Amino acid sequence: MPHLKFKEMVPTYGFDDVALVPGDVTINPDQTNIDFTIGNFKFSIPILASAMDAVVDPTLAIKFGKLGGLAVLNLEGVQTRYENPDEILEQIAQAPQIEVTSLLQKIYSAPIKENLIADCISTIKQGGVTCAASLTPANTKRLAPIAKEAGIDVLVVQSTVTTAKHISKSYQGLILSELCQMMSLPIIVGNCCSYSSALELMRTGIDAILVGVGPGAACTTREVIGVGVPQITATMDCAAARETYFKKQGKYVSVITDGGIRIGGDLCKAFAAGADAVMVGSPLAQAMEAPGRGYHWGMSQPHPVLPRGTRIKVGTVASLEQILFGPTTVTDGTQNLVGALRTSMGVCGARSIKEMHKVKMIIAPAIKTEGKYFQAAQNIP
Amino acid sequence: MPHLKFKEMVPTYGFDDVALVPGDVTINPDQTNIDFTIGNFKFSIPILASAMDAVVDPTLAIKFGKLGGLAVLNLEGVQTRYENPDEILEQIAQAPQIEVTSLLQKIYSAPIKENLIADCISTIKQGGVTCAASLTPANTKRLAPIAKEAGIDVLVVQSTVTTAKHISKSYQGLILSELCQMMSLPIIVGNCCSYSSALELMRTGIDAILVGVGPGAACTTREVIGVGVPQITATMDCAAARETYFKKQGKYVSVITDGGIRIGGDLCKAFAAGADAVMVGSPLAQAMEAPGRGYHWGMSQPHPVLPRGTRIKVGTVASLEQILFGPTTVTDGTQNLVGALRTSMGVCGARSIKEMHKVKMIIAPAIKTEGKYFQAAQNIP
Amino acid sequence: MPHLKFKEMVPTYGFDDVALVPGDVTINPDQTNIDFTIGNFKFSIPILASAMDAVVDPTLAIKFGKLGGLAVLNLEGVQTRYENPDEILEQIAQAPQIEVTSLLQKIYSAPIKENLIADCISTIKQGGVTCAASLTPANTKRLAPIAKEAGIDVLVVQSTVTTAKHISKSYQGLILSELCQMMSLPIIVGNCCSYSSALELMRTGIDAILVGVGPGAACTTREVIGVGVPQITATMDCAAARETYFKKQGKYVSVITDGGIRIGGDLCKAFAAGADAVMVGSPLAQAMEAPGRGYHWGMSQPHPVLPRGTRIKVGTVASLEQILFGPTTVTDGTQNLVGALRTSMGVCGARSIKEMHKVKMIIAPAIKTEGKYFQAAQNIP
Amino acid sequence: MPHLKFKEMVPTYGFDDVALVPGDVTINPDQTNIDFTIGNFKFSIPILASAMDAVVDPTLAIKFGKLGGLAVLNLEGVQTRYENPDEILEQIAQAPQIEVTSLLQKIYSAPIKENLIADCISTIKQGGVTCAASLTPANTKRLAPIAKEAGIDVLVVQSTVTTAKHISKSYQGLILSELCQMMSLPIIVGNCCSYSSALELMRTGIDAILVGVGPGAACTTREVIGVGVPQITATMDCAAARETYFKKQGKYVSVITDGGIRIGGDLCKAFAAGADAVMVGSPLAQAMEAPGRGYHWGMSQPHPVLPRGTRIKVGTVASLEQILFGPTTVTDGTQNLVGALRTSMGVCGARSIKEMHKVKMIIAPAIKTEGKYFQAAQNIP
Repeated sequence: MPHLKFKEMVPTYGFDDVALVPGDVTINPDQTNIDFTIGNFKFSIPILASAMDAVVDPTLAIKFGKLGGLAVLNLEGVQTRYENPDEILEQIAQAPQIEVTSLLQKIYSAPIKENLIADCISTIKQGGVTCAASLTPANTKRLAPIAKEAGIDVLVVQSTVTTAKHISKSYQGLILSELCQMMSLPIIVGNCCSYSSALELMRTGIDAILVGVGPGAACTTREVIGVGVPQITATMDCAAARETYFKKQGKYVSVITDGGIRIGGDLCKAFAAGADAVMVGSPLAQAMEAPGRGYHWGMSQPHPVLPRGTRIKVGTVASLEQILFGPTTVTDGTQNLVGALRTSMGVCGARSIKEMHKVKMIIAPAIKTEGKYFQAAQNIP
Repeated sequence: MPHLKFKEMVPTYGFDDVALVPGDVTINPDQTNIDFTIGNFKFSIPILASAMDAVVDPTLAIKFGKLGGLAVLNLEGVQTRYENPDEILEQIAQAPQIEVTSLLQKIYSAPIKENLIADCISTIKQGGVTCAASLTPANTKRLAPIAKEAGIDVLVVQSTVTTAKHISKSYQGLILSELCQMMSLPIIVGNCCSYSSALELMRTGIDAILVGVGPGAACTTREVIGVGVPQITATMDCAAARETYFKKQGKYVSVITDGGIRIGGDLCKAFAAGADAVMVGSPLAQAMEAPGRGYHWGMSQPHPVLPRGTRIKVGTVASLEQILFGPTTVTDGTQNLVGALRTSMGVCGARSIKEMHKVKMIIAPAIKTEGKYFQAAQNIP
Repeated sequence: MPHLKFKEMVPTYGFDDVALVPGDVTINPDQTNIDFTIGNFKFSIPILASAMDAVVDPTLAIKFGKLGGLAVLNLEGVQTRYENPDEILEQIAQAPQIEVTSLLQKIYSAPIKENLIADCISTIKQGGVTCAASLTPANTKRLAPIAKEAGIDVLVVQSTVTTAKHISKSYQGLILSELCQMMSLPIIVGNCCSYSSALELMRTGIDAILVGVGPGAACTTREVIGVGVPQITATMDCAAARETYFKKQGKYVSVITDGGIRIGGDLCKAFAAGADAVMVGSPLAQAMEAPGRGYHWGMSQPHPVLPRGTRIKVGTVASLEQILFGPTTVTDGTQNLVGALRTSMGVCGARSIKEMHKVKMIIAPAIKTEGKYFQAAQNIP
Repeated sequence: MPHLKFKEMVPTYGFDDVALVPGDVTINPDQTNIDFTIGNFKFSIPILASAMDAVVDPTLAIKFGKLGGLAVLNLEGVQTRYENPDEILEQIAQAPQIEVTSLLQKIYSAPIKENLIADCISTIKQGGVTCAASLTPANTKRLAPIAKEAGIDVLVVQSTVTTAKHISKSYQGLILSELCQMMSLPIIVGNCCSYSSALELMRTGIDAILVGVGPGAACTTREVIGVGVPQITATMDCAAARETYFKKQGKYVSVITDGGIRIGGDLCKAFAAGADAVMVGSPLAQAMEAPGRGYHWGMSQPHPVLPRGTRIKVGTVASLEQILFGPTTVTDGTQNLVGALRTSMGVCGARSIKEMHKVKMIIAPAIKTEGKYFQAAQNIP
């Protein structure tokens, strides 16, 4: 209507807005290749466990690594602030919902102990698996050398939004290109969610980006500050940046979709949207081995003045192995995530993740109304 | 936003997203012709009963055939695995919801007995109706000759997604063109849901395709593996393939919309989207004659490691004849499906299914909000 | 995706999908002119009361006429089938919900008595108001002369869908052009909902069309036969036909939006979409004077084999005068419909209904989510 | 479908339909500048408190001003009709929901007392803050001089819809250009919601416009008269008018988004849509200092014949300071609105409100479905 348009806006899509189209050829699931590589490390499943205290502790990291994936330990969480993290995790699980945010604010205000960083990394390394762990940009300069010293294999630099350039009065921003040189090991940075910011990050020399702002099950970033890009669009835009950067520079920077994946269907769609791997939180928090004891909370929830997130009850439903590989009697897509990926690839005719990137995807909102006509018998005992 | 677009996505539509536009001429319902033909077989109603254990057993197949339609017996379900299928069906109906998937997994792991295949087919043939039955692609080579020997009239080859070419290490894929030659009887293959895959299937020489991946009431394929195309778009795309193939090859391969049809309105829209016939499951599972005893479950639910589907309670509400032809006092569209189709065709000015293909269809989401202003008195005793 | 597209589909809009944009000039509500004219009859409010048994009986017709509108009596309902319609209406109101459709089927199978047609019309005429009444196309030839003889002023020929041409084996279709000549009084025909069918109807010489298939609160046409066009699009398309026909033939055929209007907002939008008048059902069924006793049901619900519709409880909430003109303490838009129209016109800067046709309308789905943040206190006693 | 299109309609967007995209650079929140200026008055936060009786009384106005914002006192509400407004406010809070509209109609029919206007303004001025207060257009000519005499700093002329030209029989419309000359102080006028009406208002010489028709939490304008424009589109269109007017005339007329802001996310999006400031109602009605005692109602609800609005229960949840600046343990975005704005600006790389106007915004409906898979533990005690 106006003579002058104030701003262009494009439509965007999340997991529930799209679906995959079967291929013209189908493939047996056991014929699919789902390897994921970062630096010289190769993983038999393209799944990372989120750097969240309810998901990863050293024990789970070892178990997850042995199952073929890569767990990321949060180096600024309860594992490095407390000598007795299990007691703290028990407190969080026991807290009444109404008091949990203030409890978390208190718990996460304890100082990070450098010796615990080293201990955690050593424990994981001794478990015989690749060790990945995360720091926030503000603490990376100080703590990354300690992590390197302790033998970390893959460093993750992560905050709600991380950009190649940060403007601050109080401290000199982290220079990612310097970090890459100093560490000389694979570096994953995130989160980002647009073509241009992904491209800027790739130019710093990092090895992979985490994609996703605002979509997680335990995240309220969008409510609190209005910011967020639905994951399918975010992944597609960042995958486009990867292609652009690879064409120009010859370096393939992996795209890891992080946040919002609840079920096998979501995970499959992330790959079709261009992901090389996915980072998963709440579905793994449901594992018997998960440190969260059936609860899950976001790493922004303990923010001292502007908490963003909510503790959700995910329950403890199965072993880590069952959640990843089945077998299962659950039919809602929350278990056997790897089986779901291989089956989806087979149905879509994709032999590899690169072929999965080419699968047709459609806009198809997930609205089901049969409940109007037939009784949903799911909950009848 | 990105300089390079990763993937194009088109909008798609399901039954609830569209509506039909009345014609400029109207026709008395009794003047409409709704015949459906496949090979030399002609049916007075264009409705197939789904090859699902809760919907079709030999008794229902005979009854349904006498009412003018074509029921498809599942040759890999309880009827061919057990001498006493009724006891098994009773077990399923009695199982608590929480245990039903593991029970189904156990029940469907029993071996298929070849003699029962022959018995079922004979029973239906002796009932004096056209006999149609289904096999999965993996078992077709082995079992189709037995079915032919037993006198089957129409063979249905069906799995979640069936393509003209399947890649597998463990077994030589089924060659549909060879099957057509060997069987020399009408062959229906499915399911498929896109223009290109439908065209590939048509080129193998088959007589009809089943359209529909992911839409059924008892199906969770989309949640588990992310795959599915809403039925209106799937039907329109496959109907376009039929037109293309007919123009080039002169052979008319029928399009049968299978899955997701709950009410008369859905059924009418399927024809306007290009279907020559529809395959119906849950509405028929509500019949007094249905083997499911008021329950309905999908054929992917018993999958041993990646079950997809859920048992739903549909209830037992009327006779098969009433569900198809009325009369009824139910006004939500679940009964008198044939009357609904004829009335819809009359209102839209379509004398035949071919004319119904030309009826105007609009995008019109089914959102009703009057409940906000008036009390829905439907459930007041 | 397909090389050949099977069918084009356009988006359509209902009342809840759109909103009006205030004008650049505002006008005091008392400066607005909302007259409605048909033939030589002029009405001070552009509102017709629906030809439904729960809405109009002779008593209400007189009252409604005196308030400035035009009520339409259903000549094929309980008023002309029974000597004692009030007893019948009481039975309907008393019936348990589960039995009401079969009761209605029985009640409406009684024969229409020609003497009662004459009586009803005489009663209304003696009340000193314009008398309008409705017949279905199948009965119009036989009963219209009786209605004319009895002094009817405006004839309404109405069924779910009425077209200029109807094809039937059993009876010679009604020729509307012949009817117009024979009756020589204003004729309103409906319902229709598309540009082309509206244009065809206008060419027969009628004076107004009723627009609306499937939108009413008590209507399940869309569920049962898949047919229906949302009211904003239907009204805009038929208004476009009116403009085309007026430009070519010089005759202005009024467009009356019928069905789906629940609140003042809907009514205002109908005019902005091009309506010259609106026909209102459920909001008037809430009047103390309404024959429905707090209930409302559609005229397709009693269909003997394919009933479409549902009895809804609307309640008895205010006098007819209050519903039309206020004052009111109700703030949800269900009362003071005329005040709402005048206020809306004032805010939009429209001095007349013709100017209201030019008001800007936007696509703006009515989704309200504040309930998530604040407690809706509406229902607290 | 029609040959002639009756009306064009464009899609529009509200707060829940969009989201912000993080920038390529990030900024520390404490580096952001959020000043707002009107005339010679400068405010350290760009937030106005709504001219509603549940939100602003003289006491709150002083407190709010000291916190850096600008509260607007309603000069036609309970504060100027009653010597004892607190008793009246208590009555409203105590009224049963079913009687509240008629009580409000009665309360607001009492005459405005000119001496109370002066008293209120004096009180606020004596509090040492900028005094802003509102009048409706119909009363502005009569009461504005009194307000000026009493020392008002900023005059707000506000009704549901205010245009540069109003047509009325009963009184000579207010000439805004004359008012500007007469008052010679900053004048804010509203509400408006389109490019053309905003431009017309700017041409009268005013200093700011209020944008928003129909979006407020306590507003039912859209239900009652069908009128309303979602806030993101309304703000963008009016911001476009501001740019046009500034380019042509060199005068920068501020755009203030008024209504519908419930949480930090909404507030941030308003600025990205082009707002220079926002006017907030219901979130402030939750303050311990708010006169509404945990309730909130719209200024159209007391309308004598066509009430529009509803009293909602917002609760009393925190101090005004906490709602504006935190700290908080609430994670749903209702508290620390200023912290949310600064954080959002930091994440989006905007150093100032003018830079926030350039932030990327996407169409991204706020639909969350994780509740289907995980138990929302928010309400567990």
